[in-house]
Amino acid sequence: MSFEVTILGSGGALPTLNRNSSAQYVNCSNKHLLIDCGEGTQMQMRKFGVHFQRLDIILISHLHGDHFFGLVGLLSTMRLLGRDGKLTIICPKGLPEIIRQQLEVGYGKLDFDIHYIELTGKEHQLVYEDKSIEILCFPLKHKIPTNGFLIKEKLKERKMKKDLLDHPLLKVEYIHRLKKGEDVIAENGTVLKSNYFTEEPAQPLSYAYCSDTAYAEKIVDCIKNATVLYHEATFLEQHKDLAKITQHSTSKQAATIAKMAGVKTLYMGHLSARYDETTSFINEAKEIFDNVFYVEDGMKIIVQ
Amino acid sequence: MSFEVTILGSGGALPTLNRNSSAQYVNCSNKHLLIDCGEGTQMQMRKFGVHFQRLDIILISHLHGDHFFGLVGLLSTMRLLGRDGKLTIICPKGLPEIIRQQLEVGYGKLDFDIHYIELTGKEHQLVYEDKSIEILCFPLKHKIPTNGFLIKEKLKERKMKKDLLDHPLLKVEYIHRLKKGEDVIAENGTVLKSNYFTEEPAQPLSYAYCSDTAYAEKIVDCIKNATVLYHEATFLEQHKDLAKITQHSTSKQAATIAKMAGVKTLYMGHLSARYDETTSFINEAKEIFDNVFYVEDGMKIIVQ
Repeated sequence: MSFEVTILGSGGALPTLNRNSSAQYVNCSNKHLLIDCGEGTQMQMRKFGVHFQRLDIILISHLHGDHFFGLVGLLSTMRLLGRDGKLTIICPKGLPEIIRQQLEVGYGKLDFDIHYIELTGKEHQLVYEDKSIEILCFPLKHKIPTNGFLIKEKLKERKMKKDLLDHPLLKVEYIHRLKKGEDVIAENGTVLKSNYFTEEPAQPLSYAYCSDTAYAEKIVDCIKNATVLYHEATFLEQHKDLAKITQHSTSKQAATIAKMAGVKTLYMGHLSARYDETTSFINEAKEIFDNVFYVEDGMKIIVQ
Repeated sequence: MSFEVTILGSGGALPTLNRNSSAQYVNCSNKHLLIDCGEGTQMQMRKFGVHFQRLDIILISHLHGDHFFGLVGLLSTMRLLGRDGKLTIICPKGLPEIIRQQLEVGYGKLDFDIHYIELTGKEHQLVYEDKSIEILCFPLKHKIPTNGFLIKEKLKERKMKKDLLDHPLLKVEYIHRLKKGEDVIAENGTVLKSNYFTEEPAQPLSYAYCSDTAYAEKIVDCIKNATVLYHEATFLEQHKDLAKITQHSTSKQAATIAKMAGVKTLYMGHLSARYDETTSFINEAKEIFDNVFYVEDGMKIIVQ
């Protein structure tokens, strides 16, 4: 199953010609998610070949405009294109009313159902689960209530050892139970051990999204050992005072969180419009954490 | 004084990669106006070199999203860039509350004043006037209350005839009154006739904006003899039934209105996303009105 992230907007509060406001498309085990939806996200989806109507879940981190001003336009376009499938939106309290009001003045009610899950920005909890993925939210440290998200594959079944598939006592109907970890008694009374016939499944992959946030060690436990961490790095070290005042992070701070959490790879984003290159961000981060990149609009991240 | 329009968005309800949602920047006698503000307008302004902070007045025709979803993002960017000058927004009733609510959840109050003038969509009246321009609104025919706008230069003063500037009886202090049309009595008792010393000023130029609207002859009187008419032409003649149902116009209908109103030039826009070229729009319109163009994003129109 694929686990891919497409960066739709990598900029900070002020969108620029090269960096749109925050938005990311995530395909995890064929579940289609959008995280944040700054102004222009629907155009970015067109540009980078992401289909609107496939989206199952939209996650909104917080109510600063660069993270949600594109949502009502996207929903409106979904409506015009005839969507009828249900959509889940996991978002801060208050957003559903804002969306409802804007759509109603123009169009009346939507033709498709939205299931809203409203967050206070204080919880660390499971907010979505199905047979293949789970999504947790956790509080970030920002000027207004803000959620981080952790998207995880579920632990898969154990895998049958291929060289034992023609074992004389094995029957097709035993396989399902053995993969679940159960031992099975064969017709002649022999116990077929799950441990013997199967091997450990691949470790579940996970993607952690932390934007916007000041340096906050409290999030480390929430994203421990994530495969990929996206952490904002709005500023360079020379502007760390500004980072503190605006409750954003520097790239060194992002790298420190990545190291403490033991993640495999760090991607940084949410670049302040004052910078026009990201090499210095990478250089500063690499002093602390080596496997680090800065995202660009249109970049694809394979979570592996 | 210049009178120029920059097309920021020429598309219909669904923005595409080449055509953004509706927005136009108008510079009329150094007054800076924005008409409509679909999603992504602030990015289009950056792209086409229009300065956010210069804007004096924003006009919103109606509350379908493709005409106003970009407004809150633009205001938010103005705030982040430190605007302190007052802004006038002329818009349908209900919009101020939508804007206020969205900004307040993220940022608290704006740091600059907005003077809202709210319209019902039923008036034909003067909505703005200063020493050099005036703006009228008038009702269009659409699914929800929708305003057309007419932006007009004011009639300028009469112009002094250059070859009479060295007339022996003329003094500098008479010129102002002669240009205003007053006759002046010279020191020796001679009456200096305004009509003799001055000539007619240039006829005031005007720009009429009609989007979105079904074919509506009632607007002809409101835009009579406009220099330039922008009239939506969402559909071709083959889709005229669709135009009727959705309360939009075909290019033939736009051309008919232009002809009846006796305008000098017609620009058509608000192209439905189903079409990928506009030659057929021009061909159909030219059967009725010859001086006609279809707008593109980034196009500049000189009103002359």
